[in-house]
This record gives sequence, structure tokens and C-alpha cells, in this order.
Amino acid sequence: MLEKLKQEVYEANMLLPKYNLVTFTWGNVSGIDREKNLVVIKPSGVAYEELTPEQMVVLDLEGNIVEGDLNPSSDTATHLVLYKHFPEIQGVVHTHSPWAVTFAQAGLDVPAAGTTHADTFYGPVPVTRKMKESEVVHDYEKQTGDVIVETFEERKINPSEVPAVLVNDHGPFTWGKSAEDAVHHAVVLEEVSKMTYHTLQLNPHQIDMDSYLLDKHYLRKHGKNAYYGQQ
Amino acid sequence: MLEKLKQEVYEANMLLPKYNLVTFTWGNVSGIDREKNLVVIKPSGVAYEELTPEQMVVLDLEGNIVEGDLNPSSDTATHLVLYKHFPEIQGVVHTHSPWAVTFAQAGLDVPAAGTTHADTFYGPVPVTRKMKESEVVHDYEKQTGDVIVETFEERKINPSEVPAVLVNDHGPFTWGKSAEDAVHHAVVLEEVSKMTYHTLQLNPHQIDMDSYLLDKHYLRKHGKNAYYGQQ
Amino acid sequence: MLEKLKQEVYEANMLLPKYNLVTFTWGNVSGIDREKNLVVIKPSGVAYEELTPEQMVVLDLEGNIVEGDLNPSSDTATHLVLYKHFPEIQGVVHTHSPWAVTFAQAGLDVPAAGTTHADTFYGPVPVTRKMKESEVVHDYEKQTGDVIVETFEERKINPSEVPAVLVNDHGPFTWGKSAEDAVHHAVVLEEVSKMTYHTLQLNPHQIDMDSYLLDKHYLRKHGKNAYYGQQ
Amino acid sequence: MLEKLKQEVYEANMLLPKYNLVTFTWGNVSGIDREKNLVVIKPSGVAYEELTPEQMVVLDLEGNIVEGDLNPSSDTATHLVLYKHFPEIQGVVHTHSPWAVTFAQAGLDVPAAGTTHADTFYGPVPVTRKMKESEVVHDYEKQTGDVIVETFEERKINPSEVPAVLVNDHGPFTWGKSAEDAVHHAVVLEEVSKMTYHTLQLNPHQIDMDSYLLDKHYLRKHGKNAYYGQQ
Repeated sequence: MLEKLKQEVYEANMLLPKYNLVTFTWGNVSGIDREKNLVVIKPSGVAYEELTPEQMVVLDLEGNIVEGDLNPSSDTATHLVLYKHFPEIQGVVHTHSPWAVTFAQAGLDVPAAGTTHADTFYGPVPVTRKMKESEVVHDYEKQTGDVIVETFEERKINPSEVPAVLVNDHGPFTWGKSAEDAVHHAVVLEEVSKMTYHTLQLNPHQIDMDSYLLDKHYLRKHGKNAYYGQQ
Repeated sequence: MLEKLKQEVYEANMLLPKYNLVTFTWGNVSGIDREKNLVVIKPSGVAYEELTPEQMVVLDLEGNIVEGDLNPSSDTATHLVLYKHFPEIQGVVHTHSPWAVTFAQAGLDVPAAGTTHADTFYGPVPVTRKMKESEVVHDYEKQTGDVIVETFEERKINPSEVPAVLVNDHGPFTWGKSAEDAVHHAVVLEEVSKMTYHTLQLNPHQIDMDSYLLDKHYLRKHGKNAYYGQQ
Repeated sequence: MLEKLKQEVYEANMLLPKYNLVTFTWGNVSGIDREKNLVVIKPSGVAYEELTPEQMVVLDLEGNIVEGDLNPSSDTATHLVLYKHFPEIQGVVHTHSPWAVTFAQAGLDVPAAGTTHADTFYGPVPVTRKMKESEVVHDYEKQTGDVIVETFEERKINPSEVPAVLVNDHGPFTWGKSAEDAVHHAVVLEEVSKMTYHTLQLNPHQIDMDSYLLDKHYLRKHGKNAYYGQQ
Repeated sequence: MLEKLKQEVYEANMLLPKYNLVTFTWGNVSGIDREKNLVVIKPSGVAYEELTPEQMVVLDLEGNIVEGDLNPSSDTATHLVLYKHFPEIQGVVHTHSPWAVTFAQAGLDVPAAGTTHADTFYGPVPVTRKMKESEVVHDYEKQTGDVIVETFEERKINPSEVPAVLVNDHGPFTWGKSAEDAVHHAVVLEEVSKMTYHTLQLNPHQIDMDSYLLDKHYLRKHGKNAYYGQQ
């Protein structure tokens, strides 16, 4: 079942090593069929070199395995929370890519420091608060999702306009209109984290870009007046 | 038409991924035929793996498309301003290469810190002032070109001697005697930005090189007394 | 003799260049047969491109060569001390991987700064004290092992839970349940050293993760309640 | 003539791109025949992809071209000074490798910060003083060699024990018992410059290693009591 989505999710997972976002098995990609409410995700701990489309695990939104012989990613419950609360997204990615992890471990947002950021993210990429002991001990992966949702709600950030978050002391989750789109955002997040880390070392006094420049770059690529590319 | 120039501009574009100057489609190269006053440029948003020489777009200096089925690069208007105001140049490159972007986001020139810099750039690579809201809202890409030209005029920098600029909070543009030459300068800019970033971290007190050493290295490679290479 | 172990140790050695952990011959991997009390190790100074399984050297735990035409790694005595004092380990790796060496040269532990670290190391990766002149002049490589063991004993660190150390002003040793497992730990150490170096530059004030998050991540991958992967 | 040496020098030049020490043509390697007092060196400005053994230029120690159709490297005069003053060396390398250039531009020695350094360099790698205007304007490349020699004489450094230097605001020269050996030293210099740069950022208070550890590591690889490798 869901052969096309399995293939897409498989291919999106294989983009993680291609773009140098993962060491060993430190990452996972999922996609969702919004009509059937079924999620396809990478199995846990399987090496990318050995991964096949058939190994993808199919679950419902409550986490029940519908098809698949392998355990799903240990981060599955986080993906499911994001699909439930962010109805417009259709793919989710988690990695431990080193520059995004640097900001996550530092407990800092990735500020919007230039047009490379603004072309994809309509404002800073937020870091969550630290999770409480009770949130870590019980239902950890589900509560990881909850703290992400809380971050976007409390800071009134639209998850379609900023399709990425840093979980404090952990690492990035990104999402998008498809599994591949979510990987695209993971690549951009890693690249702008690298650039902005170095900018902060070089000149922390000029880090936030002007809001009109942020608007211009985000809106020339997104929304009804976009004019970038071949649309 | 302009088959030879299209091929050259295509090949110069393909050097951007070769030299690791671009992620996804974040870059574009153009070239000009100075006799016909026609510019050839990469189409907007087309992946490098799928790019072909035939897809190159031909425009006049007012930005009218003379040949081509695809939209030209969204940065085309910036290229055109540079061709109009810098009559000696025949190729232009724009990228978001990370070390040059680091200085652009920091709002800082790349200072002339050593002979690697002086072999190519006859003085600091300037950063523009920040663009004003009115410049961003209307005719943004054209006004990006205007602020580059203003920077060179106000600081009395010869664009043939310093064939590169950082647009504030954005990234680098470089140019040269051909599309390939402009890419060459983009590679050098990225490399010296990396070296000089690290020098600034290690010892900010000795950053500017002696002017006679700058002269020596620039002039042993450029001008009538050059003796580097096989000329 | 020990053909299977030689092959394993050979393959584990070849992972060092694959994972960019070595320049030239700056690394070595060994494995042990705990029943026969024999150690198999890389020969000294042999380039990885020319290495063969047959060249592996077999020694007893006193350092006597049992089989092999080549000199064993100059670090052999350190490996032997680790096998004697840490009975649960079956593979040892030494490299000069640059991010781990950075912490070793700085004389600093790699602190547990995030879940990437906690997934593998149950606490900071310790740096040894500096070695004394008498320890360097006589039996240097054996005494390097002794100072590693002292570090784990004095700080009451379980070498199975933190399978890595930094020798002060020198570099990392890692170990594991097999030669390959020890290499795995060397890769993780390099990656977390890189991430945590940058975190320390960005925000030294939030460097230690909460102990309950450390517990959660370490224990979801290790021990009887682990649920990561396909076990 | 000198076909064997030309081949060796050609192959040593080709190691520069292999070890990522050069961008474009920013490097050159030479070798010497000490019986004939003839030097073989890379031609100036020829791309590595197009280089052939036959293109190598043969000169005497006064810089007269004995064989070859191409101009020799623009840095030839520096190589010749080193061969004249350091009679034990048989190969010389110049690059603009970025980590070594970082220290050169900062005007700082690469301190002996750990055993990776001590395995090859018996003490800090010195930076020269800045060159004076008169030294730059006249006979620049010869005087570059002179200032290197002055540095080793004034600081009483043995060029066989520290086969590398940083020319202030310029970059590294290394040398060795052959052209390949000189490249080996260029690789080590780049690697220890990278490591020690990061150590200086992390903990500048513990940068110099103990002299007995420096002795131990240098002498276990060099001299009559060396025991590293298969000698």
C-alpha cells in the first residue's frame, strides 16, 4: 500500500546523506497521505546504504503500525504530533546536522541575518524552551512534539512560513509540502545556521536584517506575488 | 543566436557547483556581447543538474527578452546595471557562497590581509551600505545594482581592480573579462573571505597588509609589468 | 591464525580513512580474542592504501609478537593496558582526528552538551591530566594507558558507558565491544567535539544538558530498556 | 635530462590538489639534483589538470634556465635561496593553504600545541618578520628567501628539525629530503595549523606543550633512536 508515498519517503531519506545532513543513522524523514491519514516513515536504526523503499513503515496518526516488519523511527511520535497540529504540512525531517545542532545546544534561535535566510524562512528559526523532567521521563517523543507546537503558538509563528524548529539541547526538525520539501528546508537551515554562526562571531552588533528586506526576499519566492523561478 | 556566448555562460554556470559556491539554485552567471549589446543569463530557479546551454536567456540591456522560453534569473536587473556602468566587464556572477555571505551579513569589507587577496583584488572588497526601504520595495534588483555602483563611485574604487562587492545582508557579486573570469573572482573571494575571517579571530590587530606588498602582488599579476604565468 | 579477527581489525582500520579520521598513518585499530588473550593490531607506519589483512600483527597481552613480520603500531602498549584494565572491551582505536585533538590540546573535557552526545556517551568525555616527565621518558606508551585508567578510576567513570578519552596534549582513544564498535565511537566523538566546540563559541553559558535528558537519551539506546533500532 | 627528478617533481606537484592544499595554481613544488646542482620546478600559472612531467623547468642555482619552454614558477628565486642556504634539503613546496595562511596573515607562529605537531616539527613553526619596502620592491622573491633564512638563523632553528616557515602576510614554505617529503610537511603544517587555531579559540591558556613530551614525540620518529614505522 501507498507505494508511491513509500518511494517518495525513501528517496527523501536518501537525500540526507547526499546533502551531508547525517552521520550513521542520525536522521529520519516521513510523509503523510492526508486523505487516508496514514504516515510513512523510515525504520529505526537502519543504515542508509541498506535502506529500501519496502522497509518504510506505515502508521496511523495514533502510532499504530498498519504495515511494515520493522520498528519505525524512535522519533515517530514527534512526527505524528506535528502532522496533527500543523494540518498544512505533508513531510517531516529530523536530523542532527551539526550547525543546526550548534544553535540547539546553545539554546538560541537562528536569527534572520540575511537574504539567504529570508528566501526560505519568514523570520528567526525558533528554539524551544528546555523540556521539563516530567516531559522527558514520560512520553518523551510525543512531548517533544508538544513543546514544538507550544513554541509556535506562544510566539505566534506560522509553521508554513517558518518550516523549521530547534529542539533545545537536541537538534532540528523541519517540515514542508512534501517529504522532499521538508529535506529542502533541512538543507537551508543547516546552511544559514553555518553562515549566521560565523556572522555572530565576526560582528554580533549587526545581526538582524531590516524587516522590509526580509519581506521582499520571502515574498518574491512565496505567495501570490512571487516572481522567482518558472511559475 | 549567440551560440558561442550561450555555451560559455552555460559552462561558467556549471563551474559554480564544481567550486562549491552554490547550494540548490542560489547563484547565476551572465555574459555580454558588447558589440550587439545583448546579455546571456541563466534562467531562474533551474537546477544545475538539469541546465542546458539552450536554456540560457538572451536579453537587451533594458531587460527585454530577445530569445528564450524561460524566465531569466530574478537578479537579472542587477547584472544589467553592472554592465551599463562598468563598460570594461563582460561577465557577472552572483552567489550565496557562505564565507562571502558571512562578511555581507556582518556588514564588513573583506580587508586586504595578505598576498592571496592582493594577487586578485587591489584593495579591500567593499560592502555596500544597507539598502533603504524605498530601494527594496520598488525596482529592488535594479536598485541593488545602483547601490553597488554608488559604492564604487563614492569610495573611488576601480571595478576592474576590485572585481567584487558584498551587498549588505545579502551576498557577493563578482565580475570580470568573461563569464569564466567572473567565476574565477567568485572563487578567490570565497577563499580569501574564509582565510581572513579566521585571521580576524586569531589576531585582529594585524589585519591590514602593507601597501607596498599589496602593490607588488597585484602588479606582478596585472598590468603591463606583470610577470606571473606564461604571458 | 585468528584469520577472522585479522579481517575484522583490517576492515575497522580501513574505516578510519573512510570517515576522515586520519591523515597519513595517524591512527590504528586493534581487536582482542578474549579466549586466547591475543591482540591483533595494525602494523606501524603502513599507509592505509597499502594495508592488507595479512599484515596485521598478533601479540599476547605482555606485548610479545606471536605472529607477523612487521612492527606493531607504536601505540600498542597503550592498547594492551586498556585491554587488561577494561575487561569488557574488545576493540581499541587511536586517531589524531582534528576536533577531538582540539579538546585534547586545550586540556578540556568534551562536555555533554546535547542529545547527540548522550546517545553514545553517558557523561562528559574526560581529558587526562598532563603526563609527568618520568611517565613520558620511560615506558611512555604503557604509561599513557596507565594515565587513562587512572582518569576513569579517580573520576569513577564506567569505561563501558563512556567509551572514549582524550589524552592531554595528544588525542583520542576510544574502545568498544568490537574493533568496528570502537571506530563507531571514534566517529561520534569527532562529531560531538565539532558541535560542542561551536556551541562553546556561541554560548558558553548553556553548555551542560539536564541530567534527566542525558539519562533519557543514553538509556533509550543502551541497556535493558533500550528501544532504539531493531533489537 | 633529469627525467627521474622531473617525474618526481611532477608527482609531488600533483599531490597538492590531492591533499586540498591549492586553489587554482596557487602552489608549486621543486626538487634538486645535488650532484649536478640543478633544480626542477613547476612552470608558472599552469593548471594542475593540464600539467605534464615534460613541462617541468630545469634551472641552475643562479636561476638560469637550462631546459624548458615555459617560464618557471614566479617563486623560483625563493626556492633557490632555500636550496643554497639549507644544504640538507632536496625539495621545496609553496602553497596558500588556508589554515597556514591564517597564521601567516595573523603574523603568528604555529605553536607546538600537541603531539601531532611534535611528531613532525621540533618546536614552533616560525613566522618571518614583515618584509621592508625595499625588500619588496627589488628582488622580491629572492629577498623572501633571505628573510626566511634570517628567521632560522636569528632564532637558531635547525631547518631540518622544523622544515616549514610562514612568510608574514603571505603563506607557508616547507621543505624536506625530497619533493614528496616537502609536500608531506605541507600537509602536516596545514593540519596542525587547523587544530591549533581551534585550540587557541577554545583555551589560549594551555597552548604550549611540555618540552619533554615534544622531545619524546619528535625523537620517537626522528634520529638514531626512532622506533616508529618499519625502519
